[in-house]
Parts: sequence; C-alpha cells; structure tokens
Amino acid sequence: MYLSKSFIPILKNNPSEAKIKSHQLMLRVGMIKQASAGIYSWLPLGFKVMKKIETIVRQEQDKIGAQEILMPTIQTSEIWKESGRYDDYGEEMLRIKDRQNREMLYGPTNEEQVTDIFRSSLKSYKSLPQLLYHIQWKFRDEIRPRFGIMRGREFYMKDAYSFDITDEDAFHSYNKFFLSYLRTFKRLSLTAIPMAADTGPIGGNLSHEFIILADTGESKIFTDKRIFDLTSEGTNLEKSSLEQMRKKYEQFYSVTDEKFNKEEFEKMVLEKNRLITKGIEVGHIFYFGDKYSKAMNAAVDLPGGKKDFVKMGSYGIGVSRLVGAIIEAKYDEKNEIMKWPLSVAPYDVAIIPMINKNDSSALEKANNIYSELNKNNIDAIIDDTDENYSSKIKKMNLIGAPYQIVIGKKSEGDLLEFKEVDGESQDLPLNKIIEIITKQKNSN
Amino acid sequence: MYLSKSFIPILKNNPSEAKIKSHQLMLRVGMIKQASAGIYSWLPLGFKVMKKIETIVRQEQDKIGAQEILMPTIQTSEIWKESGRYDDYGEEMLRIKDRQNREMLYGPTNEEQVTDIFRSSLKSYKSLPQLLYHIQWKFRDEIRPRFGIMRGREFYMKDAYSFDITDEDAFHSYNKFFLSYLRTFKRLSLTAIPMAADTGPIGGNLSHEFIILADTGESKIFTDKRIFDLTSEGTNLEKSSLEQMRKKYEQFYSVTDEKFNKEEFEKMVLEKNRLITKGIEVGHIFYFGDKYSKAMNAAVDLPGGKKDFVKMGSYGIGVSRLVGAIIEAKYDEKNEIMKWPLSVAPYDVAIIPMINKNDSSALEKANNIYSELNKNNIDAIIDDTDENYSSKIKKMNLIGAPYQIVIGKKSEGDLLEFKEVDGESQDLPLNKIIEIITKQKNSN
Repeated sequence: MYLSKSFIPILKNNPSEAKIKSHQLMLRVGMIKQASAGIYSWLPLGFKVMKKIETIVRQEQDKIGAQEILMPTIQTSEIWKESGRYDDYGEEMLRIKDRQNREMLYGPTNEEQVTDIFRSSLKSYKSLPQLLYHIQWKFRDEIRPRFGIMRGREFYMKDAYSFDITDEDAFHSYNKFFLSYLRTFKRLSLTAIPMAADTGPIGGNLSHEFIILADTGESKIFTDKRIFDLTSEGTNLEKSSLEQMRKKYEQFYSVTDEKFNKEEFEKMVLEKNRLITKGIEVGHIFYFGDKYSKAMNAAVDLPGGKKDFVKMGSYGIGVSRLVGAIIEAKYDEKNEIMKWPLSVAPYDVAIIPMINKNDSSALEKANNIYSELNKNNIDAIIDDTDENYSSKIKKMNLIGAPYQIVIGKKSEGDLLEFKEVDGESQDLPLNKIIEIITKQKNSN
Repeated sequence: MYLSKSFIPILKNNPSEAKIKSHQLMLRVGMIKQASAGIYSWLPLGFKVMKKIETIVRQEQDKIGAQEILMPTIQTSEIWKESGRYDDYGEEMLRIKDRQNREMLYGPTNEEQVTDIFRSSLKSYKSLPQLLYHIQWKFRDEIRPRFGIMRGREFYMKDAYSFDITDEDAFHSYNKFFLSYLRTFKRLSLTAIPMAADTGPIGGNLSHEFIILADTGESKIFTDKRIFDLTSEGTNLEKSSLEQMRKKYEQFYSVTDEKFNKEEFEKMVLEKNRLITKGIEVGHIFYFGDKYSKAMNAAVDLPGGKKDFVKMGSYGIGVSRLVGAIIEAKYDEKNEIMKWPLSVAPYDVAIIPMINKNDSSALEKANNIYSELNKNNIDAIIDDTDENYSSKIKKMNLIGAPYQIVIGKKSEGDLLEFKEVDGESQDLPLNKIIEIITKQKNSN
C-alpha cells in the first residue's frame, strides 16, 4: 500500500483538545475522527489495529470453549424491568422511543438480553455448562465523555456470559475466563494484573478487574508488586489447574480503590513490595449467581427432576479501549515514536525510499521489496511521497509499524538499512529481514 | 463440536409466526431469536453463516482497492440538516435525544457521515480516487417489520462510498463496485442480476439493484432472460474492461418496477425471452455526483489551482439479509432440506453416529473422523445424542451442512457412508472424502 493512496490523514501538530497521549496520537495520525461528543469514526489505521485486537480476543474466547453469538444494540425496556435495573441505571442509559412509542434503549450491557435468550432456548442441565460471548457496540451516555475512545459513549466491547448449575461449576467457568484474559492481554504485549474489585451495578460478590499500569489511568490501585512477575504459563482448563492459578495470583494483595483497606494492606504487604499507583481497566469479570436468572425465571431441569435457576457470571473486555490502552503503554510521547506490538500493528514494516524527481530507482526498489514481503505474508506500507528524510521518518514513527526499511542514495547492492522503529539501524539482506519478522510474528 | 454442547436450540415444528421459508428455517433451527419487533439476536449457527458472508463481502471490497473504516451507529442530526435529509427521512429514522437533549439518530445510511470524514481529511486531487467502506449495524424503523431478518429494523450492512474528481473517474469507481458485487454474489452461489433502478432517497441519476429471483421477493422485475447467462469472468479493473462488462449486461433489458416501461420492454425483448417475476434485492449501487459534497462543502484542490466538489457514489450490500436470501434460494421446504453453499456453511460436514447405550464404538469412530477432518481444516459437527436415525437425519438436514457421514451398525472397515445432504449415499474411505470436500472448498 502506498501512503499517498491510503486514507491516513496525518496532522502536522498535536491536536490541542487531546489531554492524554493515546487521544493525541489517535487524532494526530488519523486513526479516528470524532463524529460527536464521545462518538468516533475509525479510519483505516485505527480500524486495522482494533480489528486485530478483536481477532485475538475472539481466538482466546474460542479456546476456552465459548461460543460466539451477536445480540442487537437496541433492546426493549421490558427485560430491564423484569430484572429491576431499568430504573436503577439512570441517565447513563440511552433511552429511545420508537415510532410506535415503545420504550427501547441502546444496550450498555447484556445480562438481561442473554438471560432472555437462555431461558427460551435451553431447559436441561444436560446442556450445561454454556459459555456465550459476543463482540458488539455498546452505548453509555457519559455525562463527561473524555480522553477520546478511552471514555467514549459508543464503544466496542466483548462481553461473555456463563451458565452453570452449581456454584462450584460456575467458579470453574469464572476461572476459565480469568485464564483467557491473562492470555489475551499477554498476546497484546500488555501486563494486565487481576485485582479484586467491586461489582457495581452488575451485582454479585466476586469480581476481578484486569488493570494495566498507566499514569493517565482512572483506577487507583494497591498491590504487592511481586504479582507482576506471575504468568499463567502451564495452566490448562482443568478445574484443579485453574484453581491453582487463581490461588497463585490471590496470594498477593491486589485491589482497586473501592476494595482498599489500609490496615490489611500494611499487614499483608512488606513496605518494599507495596505499590500504590494508577491504572487503566481493560477487563472486568463478575460472578453473580442467580441474580438475573431468578428475576427472569431462567431455570433448568436438574438430574433428580427438580428445577433450579442457573448460576451466571459475566466477563467484559473493552476492545476499542484496548487500542488506547496499548498506546498509553507503548507510545514514547517525548520522541514521538509509537511502537505497536507486532500482533496488532497496522503494518508490520514501513518502507521508506528517498525519492528524487528525476530518479525513480528507490521507489522501484521499494516496490520489489514490498512484493517480496507480501509473498511472505508481511504487510508493508511504502511512503511514496517526495518529502525529505526527516519528515518521512517522523510520519512513520507516528504510524508505528514496528520495523522500518530505509532506501537511501547509499543503498547499493543487497544490503538494506533495517531498524526497529525505536532502535539502531543495521544493514541486512532482505531474506534475513524476512526471517526476523516472520520469527517474531510466529511467536505470538 | 458436539451437538449436545453447542447452543443450537432446534424447534420440533415450524413456528407459526413465520410466513416465508427463510424466517421459518432460521427460527426452527435456532439461527436467530427475536429480541423485539424487527430486532434479532444471532445465535451461534446464524452467526457463523453471517460472519462467513461478511468475510467474502470484505475480501471482494479489498480486491478492488477499497479501504475499510468503521463509522459509529449513533450520528448527530447536524450533518443531516446540512445535507437537507433530516426532515425528508420521516419516521423510518430512529431519532434519539441524549441526556444533554441533543438531537441524535441511529444511522439508516452513512452518506453524510462519510462526507464529513472526507472533507476534514483530504484536500487535494492527488489523494483521489478514494474508495471507503464499512460494515456496520443500521436501523430503519419500519412501520411493519416482517419476514424475520429480511425486513428487520436493525440490520447489518456493508456500505461503501467513492470519491473522484470527474464524472468519468466516478463511473470507473462505480464499475469497480459493479464488478465486485457480481463476484461477491457468485461466491455466495447466488445468481444476482443487476437491474436499472430508481435512486429513491439517496438521490442521483444512475443506479443498479442486484436482485436474486425468489417468489417471496418484494421487488417486481422485468428482464430479458438471456441476462442470466452472463458472467463477469475475464473482467479486470481497467477502465475499458469494466466498461465492456457494463455494456455486456446493459444490452439486455432488465429493470425494477419503478423503471418499467411496457412499450420499451415489448420493443426490446422478444416474447420468448421476456421474464416478469419477483426477486429479493441484495445489493444497490448509486451514483449521485456532488449532491452531498456540494451541500456539505467537500471540495478538493484541482491541478490548475481551482477547487471543485468531489463526485460521489454509494454502494450497499445487505449482509444480514443475505443469510435469508441464500435460504430462500437454497432451502427445499417440502423435504425440509437446507443445503448451504460450502463457502458460507455453518459446518462443512455433519457426522452422524448411531449410538446405543451400551456401545460407544460409533461415537469413538466419529471422534476419530472429526479429528482427522479438523487436521485438514474441515469443520464438522457430531450429533452425539442417542436419538434414532431418522430424527438425527432430520435435524442435520435442517442445519444444512452440505455433507453428511453416517456411522451405522454396518459401518465396518475403512469405507464410510458419505452423502451430500440432498444426494445419494456412497461408500468411500475417509481420505477420498477429505479430497472431495477440500477440492470443493478451494474452488471458491
């Protein structure tokens, strides 16, 4: 793809309305464009990143046996009246009257909708457990939308729901999602820490937020810093393996603001291990038993002939928010260098030929390299404009393809000037470059 | 995947509320569930089919050089006031007031939104042509939603927009989409015929609907039946090649109701070639010049230093509607047999083992076959229930995997009972079955 033909409207300067670096970069480099307060269009660069994040989220849901569905954005108020949340939800719920004057709403979450689907579909314990998820737009009518897509009104979210008969089975489902979240964030090159959290308007008594550290985060967190060294490596989907993983994480104090207890913190965590900082919530999981199934009469036949309400949990990942969260974690604002993790990068490589008016040889060379990379499933963008070197590098540093190939006047023979976007140049032949990138891609 | 663990709630009988066969089958076999009037949730079976259709639509957009973006569902009324369509659109537009009392709406289409993006992003003829598309939920508040997802209120649509400087360039863009639509429908095993059509509320003076024949269709059509023998084979993206293709199609009379002229029809079409019938609209393309760009001031600098409004077209495919359209075209209602085109089938093969309480050998055999198919990228579902033969076949005929492998008592040795869902059984070894399916898959 030629930069001149791609729809990437780059701004010369940082937009003044953006207060945090993800918002700045996303506007600056044309990833998004505001449509109205808290509502954004995703332009090709932003769209590509979000789609890659969505794919990773989907794959990790599929791996734990969750099945994908798709619920509508517009819901009827009736099911929310059944659950009792219609009045509770307040002004954050976007309420709509259709032409027949029926009360509708733009779904802020889907516990009611999925419970309605479940109760009319399955009747027997034999069909359980069931894990259902969907990836769909949500709307929360924030009073003060801010920070671009980090706290927008229309946002893209993966939400999953589990259905079981017993608490024990339900905890097993909960732990599967716990694992899938750790794996998902790892593939996005994020260190997301599970923290005991409040359940808020979703309800229930067990909940974890997954939080990445960031100065611009809105969540205050209190942890034992040793939790950052843990991994989910070696865990499988068996009940006992998942329980061990939960225990491993829960041995360290790690809570959000609402759950914070000073005395407990100081008792449980040695001073040298205490970390009090801010973070961004990228995932949130809940167990709430029969809160919705009881209110909405979602019951199944049990082995003995009795019936019981199913036990449910819900599990959310902010897909659009993750685009911003990755920028917050990876963008070097001072040097204006973005380095996307290769797993979600809009392009794998930027090819930067120095083009003179009377000499198209560098562009030709770029085209040949492009087609060779393409054959090897490496996605590249060529800056085919006739701007100068520093202007080209500046743009490509913002776009953030993790690798760059510079074709200058001195590029003779088979060696190419190759660098990581934030690294030092080295001269390598194209086959070696392909080898490096392919190896890196396959490691995810 | 085991049928007993999958979320496929099959009904014993046809639902009485469904009037056309796609609506019947989709409810019967648990592809969708109604959420409220004209609004549906997509359950795993329906979701898988829709997602595969979406992927084919996307690939064919990418092939003509269109770039994917994603505009929000909720739009501000301001841009619709600029274009002058806010009042025109009437009650089909779902109008919303947010908590700040701002006038918003759920986008029924995106000409205004994309023109707003364009005008703030690109300023020079050098960046043209641009083809942008997105695949997003739309809402039209139909007074009488009916026929399931065929005429629902919330629906999933691909809409694309082209931007050029001259009419001639714009027709070139128009023809690229014309070609991509023919290719898209062909990959979905649909014979969709382009017909000269009215432009309606979109505006402009050039428009084609792509229509598939179906008794239940809502479009009345008048054609020279020889148009059904044409293909887009051999056409490339060059201007002249595309023009030839357009001419080839336009030599035959082919119009929808609003464009129909009896005299012309009888003059241009010999009686033996006349076809007057009904069809389903699955795509619609429009050229409307500067209708929106002028009203919304979307202009670019021209080579000479002047400015001019860009010439635009828009191009829609009903992604969710196509699920229903394919069923209308392929479902044998009388024998209750659905045969999905392999390119969009929810499963490639159904494995149907006959299971006795005291003998798990058929299920074991099914598991082995499943894992062998899986290794060859063939997606199968196993009916692991202990129901009888005819009940199992009946279910799988409705689910519509195009191939079936039956494992009965007499299944000894290496030969398996293999059939197309609507065909005759033959005994084949597994490697031969894999060969047949793989060849068929690769042909798309």
